[in-house]
Amino acid sequence: MSILIKGGTVITHELTFRADVYCENGKIAAIGEQLDVPADAEIIDASGQYIMPGGIDPHTHMQLPFMGTVAIDDFESGTAAAVAGGTTSIIDFVIPAPQQPLMEAYQQWREWAEKSIANYSFHVAITWWDESVKRDMGTLVNDHGVNSFKHFMAYKNAIMCTDEILVASFNRCLELGAMPTVHAENGELVYHLQQQLLDKGITGPEAHPLSRPPVVESEAANRAITIANTLGAPIYVVHVSASETVDAIRYAQNRGQRVYGECLAGHLVLDDSVYQDKDWDVAAAHVMSPPFRSKGHQEALWNGLQAGTLQTTATDHCAFCAEQKAMGKDDFTRIPNGTAGVEERMPVLWQKGVNSGRITANEFVAITSTNAAQVFNVYPQKGAVMVGSDADLVIWDPEAKKTLSVRTHRSRVDFNIFEGMEVTGLPVCTLVNGKVVYRDGQVIGQAGDGQCFDRPAYGQYYDAIQRKNALSEPVAVAR
Amino acid sequence: MSILIKGGTVITHELTFRADVYCENGKIAAIGEQLDVPADAEIIDASGQYIMPGGIDPHTHMQLPFMGTVAIDDFESGTAAAVAGGTTSIIDFVIPAPQQPLMEAYQQWREWAEKSIANYSFHVAITWWDESVKRDMGTLVNDHGVNSFKHFMAYKNAIMCTDEILVASFNRCLELGAMPTVHAENGELVYHLQQQLLDKGITGPEAHPLSRPPVVESEAANRAITIANTLGAPIYVVHVSASETVDAIRYAQNRGQRVYGECLAGHLVLDDSVYQDKDWDVAAAHVMSPPFRSKGHQEALWNGLQAGTLQTTATDHCAFCAEQKAMGKDDFTRIPNGTAGVEERMPVLWQKGVNSGRITANEFVAITSTNAAQVFNVYPQKGAVMVGSDADLVIWDPEAKKTLSVRTHRSRVDFNIFEGMEVTGLPVCTLVNGKVVYRDGQVIGQAGDGQCFDRPAYGQYYDAIQRKNALSEPVAVAR
Amino acid sequence: MSILIKGGTVITHELTFRADVYCENGKIAAIGEQLDVPADAEIIDASGQYIMPGGIDPHTHMQLPFMGTVAIDDFESGTAAAVAGGTTSIIDFVIPAPQQPLMEAYQQWREWAEKSIANYSFHVAITWWDESVKRDMGTLVNDHGVNSFKHFMAYKNAIMCTDEILVASFNRCLELGAMPTVHAENGELVYHLQQQLLDKGITGPEAHPLSRPPVVESEAANRAITIANTLGAPIYVVHVSASETVDAIRYAQNRGQRVYGECLAGHLVLDDSVYQDKDWDVAAAHVMSPPFRSKGHQEALWNGLQAGTLQTTATDHCAFCAEQKAMGKDDFTRIPNGTAGVEERMPVLWQKGVNSGRITANEFVAITSTNAAQVFNVYPQKGAVMVGSDADLVIWDPEAKKTLSVRTHRSRVDFNIFEGMEVTGLPVCTLVNGKVVYRDGQVIGQAGDGQCFDRPAYGQYYDAIQRKNALSEPVAVAR
Amino acid sequence: MSILIKGGTVITHELTFRADVYCENGKIAAIGEQLDVPADAEIIDASGQYIMPGGIDPHTHMQLPFMGTVAIDDFESGTAAAVAGGTTSIIDFVIPAPQQPLMEAYQQWREWAEKSIANYSFHVAITWWDESVKRDMGTLVNDHGVNSFKHFMAYKNAIMCTDEILVASFNRCLELGAMPTVHAENGELVYHLQQQLLDKGITGPEAHPLSRPPVVESEAANRAITIANTLGAPIYVVHVSASETVDAIRYAQNRGQRVYGECLAGHLVLDDSVYQDKDWDVAAAHVMSPPFRSKGHQEALWNGLQAGTLQTTATDHCAFCAEQKAMGKDDFTRIPNGTAGVEERMPVLWQKGVNSGRITANEFVAITSTNAAQVFNVYPQKGAVMVGSDADLVIWDPEAKKTLSVRTHRSRVDFNIFEGMEVTGLPVCTLVNGKVVYRDGQVIGQAGDGQCFDRPAYGQYYDAIQRKNALSEPVAVAR
Repeated sequence: MSILIKGGTVITHELTFRADVYCENGKIAAIGEQLDVPADAEIIDASGQYIMPGGIDPHTHMQLPFMGTVAIDDFESGTAAAVAGGTTSIIDFVIPAPQQPLMEAYQQWREWAEKSIANYSFHVAITWWDESVKRDMGTLVNDHGVNSFKHFMAYKNAIMCTDEILVASFNRCLELGAMPTVHAENGELVYHLQQQLLDKGITGPEAHPLSRPPVVESEAANRAITIANTLGAPIYVVHVSASETVDAIRYAQNRGQRVYGECLAGHLVLDDSVYQDKDWDVAAAHVMSPPFRSKGHQEALWNGLQAGTLQTTATDHCAFCAEQKAMGKDDFTRIPNGTAGVEERMPVLWQKGVNSGRITANEFVAITSTNAAQVFNVYPQKGAVMVGSDADLVIWDPEAKKTLSVRTHRSRVDFNIFEGMEVTGLPVCTLVNGKVVYRDGQVIGQAGDGQCFDRPAYGQYYDAIQRKNALSEPVAVAR
Repeated sequence: MSILIKGGTVITHELTFRADVYCENGKIAAIGEQLDVPADAEIIDASGQYIMPGGIDPHTHMQLPFMGTVAIDDFESGTAAAVAGGTTSIIDFVIPAPQQPLMEAYQQWREWAEKSIANYSFHVAITWWDESVKRDMGTLVNDHGVNSFKHFMAYKNAIMCTDEILVASFNRCLELGAMPTVHAENGELVYHLQQQLLDKGITGPEAHPLSRPPVVESEAANRAITIANTLGAPIYVVHVSASETVDAIRYAQNRGQRVYGECLAGHLVLDDSVYQDKDWDVAAAHVMSPPFRSKGHQEALWNGLQAGTLQTTATDHCAFCAEQKAMGKDDFTRIPNGTAGVEERMPVLWQKGVNSGRITANEFVAITSTNAAQVFNVYPQKGAVMVGSDADLVIWDPEAKKTLSVRTHRSRVDFNIFEGMEVTGLPVCTLVNGKVVYRDGQVIGQAGDGQCFDRPAYGQYYDAIQRKNALSEPVAVAR
Repeated sequence: MSILIKGGTVITHELTFRADVYCENGKIAAIGEQLDVPADAEIIDASGQYIMPGGIDPHTHMQLPFMGTVAIDDFESGTAAAVAGGTTSIIDFVIPAPQQPLMEAYQQWREWAEKSIANYSFHVAITWWDESVKRDMGTLVNDHGVNSFKHFMAYKNAIMCTDEILVASFNRCLELGAMPTVHAENGELVYHLQQQLLDKGITGPEAHPLSRPPVVESEAANRAITIANTLGAPIYVVHVSASETVDAIRYAQNRGQRVYGECLAGHLVLDDSVYQDKDWDVAAAHVMSPPFRSKGHQEALWNGLQAGTLQTTATDHCAFCAEQKAMGKDDFTRIPNGTAGVEERMPVLWQKGVNSGRITANEFVAITSTNAAQVFNVYPQKGAVMVGSDADLVIWDPEAKKTLSVRTHRSRVDFNIFEGMEVTGLPVCTLVNGKVVYRDGQVIGQAGDGQCFDRPAYGQYYDAIQRKNALSEPVAVAR
Repeated sequence: MSILIKGGTVITHELTFRADVYCENGKIAAIGEQLDVPADAEIIDASGQYIMPGGIDPHTHMQLPFMGTVAIDDFESGTAAAVAGGTTSIIDFVIPAPQQPLMEAYQQWREWAEKSIANYSFHVAITWWDESVKRDMGTLVNDHGVNSFKHFMAYKNAIMCTDEILVASFNRCLELGAMPTVHAENGELVYHLQQQLLDKGITGPEAHPLSRPPVVESEAANRAITIANTLGAPIYVVHVSASETVDAIRYAQNRGQRVYGECLAGHLVLDDSVYQDKDWDVAAAHVMSPPFRSKGHQEALWNGLQAGTLQTTATDHCAFCAEQKAMGKDDFTRIPNGTAGVEERMPVLWQKGVNSGRITANEFVAITSTNAAQVFNVYPQKGAVMVGSDADLVIWDPEAKKTLSVRTHRSRVDFNIFEGMEVTGLPVCTLVNGKVVYRDGQVIGQAGDGQCFDRPAYGQYYDAIQRKNALSEPVAVAR
């Protein structure tokens, strides 16, 4: 199958130029004007449109078993939403139960993901520790293309990592050339605040943000950054939502440390007034961790992206329906945490980022795709419009308009946190591995179109890290 | 007994004025010129000299049982050194062994301290947690004049507090109107680094600073500050030694939080090159935690004091002789941690602070005495030259010169970390409770001259804290 | 005349205690309980009330000739308002016209001020430069008790100082032991923006804040701070209104520089939405420079006060009536700049500061009175409740309530920027030089009750400044 | 002429891959393995070596008439040094004398540059202002490929710009889509300090850094940034040397402003102890502005580069011999300001950056070449290894060693500020426009090999800037 995308303007994270793009066998085979292509190549007219690397959402949770239920979007419905929003790859999470062997969990997730329409890869969470975990981390890196491990600093009495585990696991990551990542919230403080709020009879979703104030996030981020710094490891902080966390990341970067930060489309545009909604279902629908913040934080996140303090944008897509959310009707700590967004991320970022003059179209590509590919070491296979790169592309109409709504989204979830937002700039066609999976409003890709992709260890930054660590080896004083 | 100090210039934390000071029954009874005093009052001529509040060292460890030995200065020798240096009050630490009842430990320390020449009071350390600890904290505050509790975030497998204990204890402090204080170092990281260094065969004192880098301190400080912030409690960070910790404290202060910081005379003037000394004994003599830092940190501490980010200066006086230090000959983690300095603190601060133009003489009084009295709520009983205040005074000769040395110091310890420093500006006479305990180079006070002083709960800042907490009480949304 | 204030609680910037206060011959003659006073002393019952140092407003402009008109409050009406609000001293400004001899202007202002009810002193503005200005600065400092000079960095083509003048004048201040102060706004940028706005036809008061954005202020502040730093001089920044300026001041303080900052009651509680008012008169009534800012800045100012980055609060009281404001009906640059507030400052700060838990009552005294006295070197003559201090006192009822309004204020101006604000905590009696000038809602002081007070050069900080400058003298390399 | 570079590893600012590179007609014609090239193509063996974009030095002054003399390196000798160091393009400066027509000066510099061996382009300095200057800026941008204008904030009484000129010129840049750049030092303060030092008899080169302390730089940078911010223009700060300036740039970037910063190889590795050299010639040889700084600043600059606060590295190559420097024998203000370095920049950055683990090899390419190309809008014509890019390449041997020295450098100057530095990692072959101009230690390029290159206006960031400015247009309130 070969496809020629004609007449469009290619936009990458650093270049904008007129060119046609020819895709063959799942790869980009040629870029240029007046390309010589087979007569039977399918032609897609992209006149007046932009051809960009397909989005990479480095943080999703499809069909995640969590808090006594399972996220409503499986890998098929979730990735249908993804491609409809211009996202061609997701990095989801394998989350072993405490004591569950990592490889067992990994295989389970791999099976679940086989029906994906978009490409996928997995971060693996470290939720407990023993020698087998350490060994399996090596197996995953060396044999299964995993180059990142996730650590939850929240969720006490469940999957929370102690500092002892963080130290052990970050150290193991460093040995393997992998990237440690953290969900940064101080679980002890969250737990204390939750109990305090329940004790005071504040049981509704309005208690959720009160139990997870911004400094609870920035404290944990700073702790993880410090541990990484002490060991000489890189570190990636997922879903940064608070200005204080941006400050903590910047502080470390400005001292020469390699710290990476991700933020979510939702945190960039929503604020915590949603938890005051008189309708319990509406308030509960917004329950995710970290919670939406007061307005000033949004500006800090945008500035963080623009200044390069934060590199990636994601969604933490983890969809639960009203019925599921209702599990926490009398106790906000039992409301399943999660919101959707994998379909809306790119349009929302275009609208609020590019149309507002915060970022250029090239920077849009960087923060929705290329930077994630670079940080997780799959560039230029992903995140690029280059000959030889995977033909994961989105054709974008900068003039197309739409009002985001639960009535039209592809996710199975019955709520849209961006409901009513008018956007100008939308994907009109999405290609995964050189196949059109979304066009003119229809998802035409099928379960299994997506493929698992490996992410090699030892990302680009590792060379410098290793030199630096070698030069700072301790030396005994001769006495 | 009554004493008239004649002809001097009174210097307080905010005023400088010519006046005589008359002391009677342990109190300052009159201040002014041409005072009408009893004929038999002893006259001390202070012409050309300064009369200042006696120093308060809020951080000492006399005869502390620690790391398998006992600090060499007991309350008598230690406070002899104190008064010879112009310090009239110390706040020492009761440190219960894990599982030891707080009241038992408290009584023990009270007994030990009875032979003090200077006045004294106690912070009590929280080294473990159960309901009895919580109850005893109340007893100490309500019945024994204790208004501050110390928490070690370092010393894993010994007296280190988990976050869970910090939350519980800070909360209890808030209920009681007491001040939580922390020794801020991430014990997990210290432990890891210690093992790593030993594994690499780096066993000498040069490993000590490598096992406790600056960020290990600032991380813990930030964590304690965050916990206090989340609970709405005040917080006091002892022996701040790193610029990163000053940054963390300032960051919180600038956001409206009540955070207090202390630094040590040693950290203000010494750097980590001492650990490279070819003489093991010299290097080991400087082993204390946090360790001395690279040179840039000193400037940050001075700036912190000058800008008001840090309020107090102390010594962490905890003296161990070469023979004791030798316990760690083959393993730096076994070198008893501690250095002396209670005698040198004020001269060192005058020399490096006042004589250099960093601080005014009034600011010198503030950071050596008054601020400590205010933070620990004994002002103006202590830290003041006011009618009715305790007659704890130092008469200071700004022209007197001396070279600091182990050969002349009063501590029992066989090493002086300030060896060879030339200072101009020295105490010539020290009064404790209106009695001359040091004069013309001789300690003439006697064991028992010092008295234990109570520190009431609910320091001045508590009023604002309580109003603020009340206004931020969570509210349920009516649905 | 002697007065005994009985039954109250004295609150100073650092102490709170039960005591009666006895005033005689304009001074505080005794403080204590059961005071022995003359039988004919007037008794004021202060039961349940606070006795605090009278407020010092270090920034007012009574009857200022400005922008073609004259401020409507003269020294009588303006200080009537002051004492009704608990303020007993103002520091006003002598502003010579360019080329006008300083001494001539100074004499003029002295005459105008003779009818003051409150005490007063003068900063003198440097609006031009030649040898006579330099000489007169010396005369003012040495013979007239002036210890501070003001520099406008805005108002191009009028009284704006070039960098050349700033350098010359700050240097002269340093020689004289005086304090240079600045109105920090980049006049060149303001001028450019004004012209640009007028060119675009934006002529109303809404253009005013647009012509003076926050960074225009912080730039100038940073420039003045840099000049002071380079010369080794202290610096005081008047009416800090922007968070960026607080950042600039803090940055310098944290590097060891002596920088002082003032903020206005108005900037602490009002925001720039006032300029959008549909009523031109209302919008114009708020035109002052720097303008009111967007909401986030208020938090930064409060934090600045609480953390000690800013020391003083003032009003820049400079009242113009609607008729005067109308001079700029067609051109916002011609609206006389200024708002009132000298009566409301202390109640507003109590309400928004103390009642909210931001600051303690002691800190309230510090920022409304004592700090100004210390910075401008009249402490403890002013700003104190000490025996021997001037009997400038306010008796404060923490339970008294009032709604601030133009209908009840004493200023002659026809607008109140705090209109409708409900406050709890009000002055009930004000004494100036030991005489009751305000009581139970009535100003009973008379023109001439106020006295001019001298402010000696070489404030306390100067000693350290001089030592530091001496130690940093440049040295030639011998070659 | 066609050349095939075989066997090397291509390193770009973001990719590292094995490939041959084929150059034809001055362009890169093909990249890959097993390329099909003409039989007569010259083959260069790059086995074990890196093929990187040739360096771009965005800040040089060849044969500059300055301070009464002319820089000793003309465009031929200067660019011979450049290519010997791997730099294939320079951006030099046209500096009109005050009142000299811009176009006249521009033509003069164009003529001088015709003998260049490396490629070249020009920033044009704005040293005065009238309508003709404004008009000529348009001509330069629209007809001559100039897209950046330089403004000196220092050099009072010579080429210093007032704020008024800065505002006018930055505004004009914004209209034209050009980049304003600044030499940031407060000329008024420099002038004052110079006079003060001379008055005190400090006339040697040791006075030079004292007359230009770090805050004099950061003040000016902050002022320029503020002006740009106020107008909505981008801004580029040349030769950032002080940590305070890095702070100022970062502060603005973190608030969403587009600020770019450059630093010099010399400032990254040298410190101000050079001015204390007992040999006047040695000290004077280091006189350049801004001066070398105390050691801590170097770390700040490296961190700035690594964190992305600073984007480019340059040299400010402006060579004066001892004889020329001697013009200031009795007056340091007359020592011609300038140092060389265009040959050493890349080896020094490799040694201190890559070999130390501060930066990766890719980041090295970014900061020595690609970022400059992007900021000045000639990417990917320059700064890239892409098909179609100019064949400006350097072949780098990461194992080659050399000791930098005046004895072996190509510049005509008689001093090398990097004398004695041992470096590992050197250019072995340099191509300009597809022609080998340096190989195996010999410069074989000839005068005229270099070509002038145009830099189009409206760099990539301008699109966002224009959207943002449009959205922030002021609006009148309807009344």
